[in-house]
Amino acid sequence: MAEQTPNTHPSHTSVQPGVRHIASPANAAVKAVRALHQKKHRESSGRFLAEGLRVLSEAVERGHAIETLVLLEPMRSHRVGRRLEAACLEGGGEVLVVSEAVLAKVARKDNPQGAVGVLRQRWETLESIDARRDFCWVALESIRDPGNLGTILRTCDAVGAEGAILIDHCCDPYSIEGVRASMGSVFAQRLVRAEFDEFRHWRHKQGGILVGASLKGTMDYQEISYPRPVFLFMGNEQSGLPESYEDACDSLVRIPMRGGADSLNVSIAASLMLYEIYNQDRKQ
Amino acid sequence: MAEQTPNTHPSHTSVQPGVRHIASPANAAVKAVRALHQKKHRESSGRFLAEGLRVLSEAVERGHAIETLVLLEPMRSHRVGRRLEAACLEGGGEVLVVSEAVLAKVARKDNPQGAVGVLRQRWETLESIDARRDFCWVALESIRDPGNLGTILRTCDAVGAEGAILIDHCCDPYSIEGVRASMGSVFAQRLVRAEFDEFRHWRHKQGGILVGASLKGTMDYQEISYPRPVFLFMGNEQSGLPESYEDACDSLVRIPMRGGADSLNVSIAASLMLYEIYNQDRKQ
Repeated sequence: MAEQTPNTHPSHTSVQPGVRHIASPANAAVKAVRALHQKKHRESSGRFLAEGLRVLSEAVERGHAIETLVLLEPMRSHRVGRRLEAACLEGGGEVLVVSEAVLAKVARKDNPQGAVGVLRQRWETLESIDARRDFCWVALESIRDPGNLGTILRTCDAVGAEGAILIDHCCDPYSIEGVRASMGSVFAQRLVRAEFDEFRHWRHKQGGILVGASLKGTMDYQEISYPRPVFLFMGNEQSGLPESYEDACDSLVRIPMRGGADSLNVSIAASLMLYEIYNQDRKQ
Repeated sequence: MAEQTPNTHPSHTSVQPGVRHIASPANAAVKAVRALHQKKHRESSGRFLAEGLRVLSEAVERGHAIETLVLLEPMRSHRVGRRLEAACLEGGGEVLVVSEAVLAKVARKDNPQGAVGVLRQRWETLESIDARRDFCWVALESIRDPGNLGTILRTCDAVGAEGAILIDHCCDPYSIEGVRASMGSVFAQRLVRAEFDEFRHWRHKQGGILVGASLKGTMDYQEISYPRPVFLFMGNEQSGLPESYEDACDSLVRIPMRGGADSLNVSIAASLMLYEIYNQDRKQ
């Protein structure tokens, strides 16, 4: 048995409730953590993974409990590692102390920075949200790349937007790539999944403006004003917003281009829109 | 012998000069193409790879010759595939017609969209560039992620910037990830590698303004004006611009944030800056 628990293997390492030393990558708890790299396991469990001391610290600071903290042994004497371990235990979580070989098995990142944590996904439903006094929400239709999605959440966070409404078949913001690209903003932004019709009906009750960004937009994105609450609607990387979704927008705006590129990356386009909305708002 | 060349294996397939049918992934020409996934082979050969019909078409449209085109057999009857084959042969290149199994060996992308091309890298030197009448260049210090670099090139292209000056230890814009993220803009933007001192001396002779974007910037990025030519200076993802580089800037500006995020992705920050510069320019 490579594992040490208070009941079976009291040892010279300080034995604490909630802390287990695990030496085998084949350990069941380690395998359960690793399974969360797969979307089906994230969906069935409602959990997800976050990698690295920095991102995990963000999670704790923003009030998310780490249910399982897989911590590299030497990190226990590291200031941030110690703080994460304490936060995890305080929240009733379990700490798995492991070697580099075991950590490499649960981390997908080449350099997992000493820790991987299991956290609980948070989703809200549209019907529970009253956005009438909010500044801004972003609605994303079938975004495919989790790096783009995470980057959009990061910019949402930077401008003080409320969160993201994921329409139809968006990728998973709780995938490891999404969490990483968000740089912790996934813990701060509110997340909702909805079908378009549901979104459209809900949106009509909130007031404000539904603005779609589109290559077919007739108005320059800097030529309209954005009264609160703003619902910014961005479409899929390849195809943009479906025509019927564009028709539902109050305004359809275009980000001008003069060079050779015929489109922008969706996270760039969303960020340019979010900053235009924010810049107008902060100057009032 | 799985290969067919006009001299050795006349067959029922139309035999053309410059076109070879290759069935074995172990073929030397295929291996030489695959080697370009590695930076050292890109550097020693001065060549690089571009994947997909769309990106390769961009290359041809922007005047880049495809030296070797690895083309999936069925793509030869596809309109775009036919055009690429013709363009490659006209430019004196070689076409390798392959099966899916062989293409999968040379493509890193899961879905390589039928073609991989070998092209020649283009680099300029600062001393050969007169930027005094240009609109805008971006200078990038030790950017690490080729996806970020490619995305910045794409936005540069969209606003009509001239190109990018890669300072110190930037990642490779000609890596497959960089080329892909640029969506073809790597073929339109001019590229230079330089040490900082060289850049600083060159820059002084060009006039205009050297603007650094920094979390330590004291001026709002929308509160200064950007006289042509603008040299926009962006630093590394983790550490930003080194202090001595910031000191060399004419202006150090900050992109305001009000939410919880304490920084923006570097490709987002660069794009917000580029669009502010472009928006001021186009409104004059």
